[in-house]
Amino acid sequence: MGRPSIKPQLIERTFKVFLARGYEGASVNDLVAAAGVPKGSFYNHFASKEALAVEHVRRYVADLELESLVESDASAFQALREHFERCIAARTATGLENGCLLGNFSTGVPTDCLELRAAVDEGFARWQGSVAAVLRRAQLQHELQPEIAADELASYLVGAFEGAIASARASGKPEHVTAFMDMTFEVVLPRMTPGDAPAAP
Amino acid sequence: MGRPSIKPQLIERTFKVFLARGYEGASVNDLVAAAGVPKGSFYNHFASKEALAVEHVRRYVADLELESLVESDASAFQALREHFERCIAARTATGLENGCLLGNFSTGVPTDCLELRAAVDEGFARWQGSVAAVLRRAQLQHELQPEIAADELASYLVGAFEGAIASARASGKPEHVTAFMDMTFEVVLPRMTPGDAPAAP
Repeated sequence: MGRPSIKPQLIERTFKVFLARGYEGASVNDLVAAAGVPKGSFYNHFASKEALAVEHVRRYVADLELESLVESDASAFQALREHFERCIAARTATGLENGCLLGNFSTGVPTDCLELRAAVDEGFARWQGSVAAVLRRAQLQHELQPEIAADELASYLVGAFEGAIASARASGKPEHVTAFMDMTFEVVLPRMTPGDAPAAP
Repeated sequence: MGRPSIKPQLIERTFKVFLARGYEGASVNDLVAAAGVPKGSFYNHFASKEALAVEHVRRYVADLELESLVESDASAFQALREHFERCIAARTATGLENGCLLGNFSTGVPTDCLELRAAVDEGFARWQGSVAAVLRRAQLQHELQPEIAADELASYLVGAFEGAIASARASGKPEHVTAFMDMTFEVVLPRMTPGDAPAAP
């Protein structure tokens, strides 16, 4: 094992390399150069580039603060709005042109990287599961119509968020992210509230 | 210039390499090996890997059959349903685990590949623009509430589709795609129909 201080340094300083270049675009040489550590030290701490990427996915999912989302005292829709606002602030802080690590890895990891793909899949499943838990609370509290499948809606909302981030990344236009928030919280979810449907014209 | 037959062969046989490995993961050596042409021939036909990738993006967007979508005689929502069904069939035919070329490139192309990013952005803009045109027809034909911003909803639907494909790719579960169709056509759009809002409980 190398010096204990090297491992956090390797993790801290390689996040942006993966984010900006993608999994395939980030070579071990790029990663150790960004971290400022010798290549040998890298392999003292991580068995492979894939193992470091898995560590980043776990940290990224932890940073989504899914506990705050699930345990929020706010109304369910308000808790979701605050959650996605936090996600957008975090993506904006690291540059919308870099997208979302989980989203980038979901499309950019080669099919044979099974461990990394499993970590990405587990991250999405935890995220969608937490959103679904809030949507089920919304149903109990009569904020969301009971007949709507909470798991499917959760998958839909997370997918729409990821799609908006990808469009914002591709186009350089943050309007896609604004459109996601407007559509979700001003159009889509309000029309799913019991007894609060807009009147016929 | 090389032999005319080489160029279509290079294009036909490299699509799956880009799809499965991503832009960064597909090297020129991989591409010429898959195409069965000498490396020198590659550069007779394409200035760079990026130029070939741009060609694939243009063909991919052409294969979305956006004219069929816009000119469909079906009701607007039915035309959209048929369009996304065609998209899902096409993605399934090339393997859901490979995702969507446009979506993969939207998250996986390095930020400094300006020409390719512009082609991806233009592809998304054409796709979203065609969906928006159908949504505006839906408004004229009283299928969609007139106060909804068609451009924002189009961006949202395309984003949700891309997110669902990415989740299906990451997880290996086609249920994410089914959830997209169910949510869009059974839950989200029906609640945006004028005078057809569900009654209060």
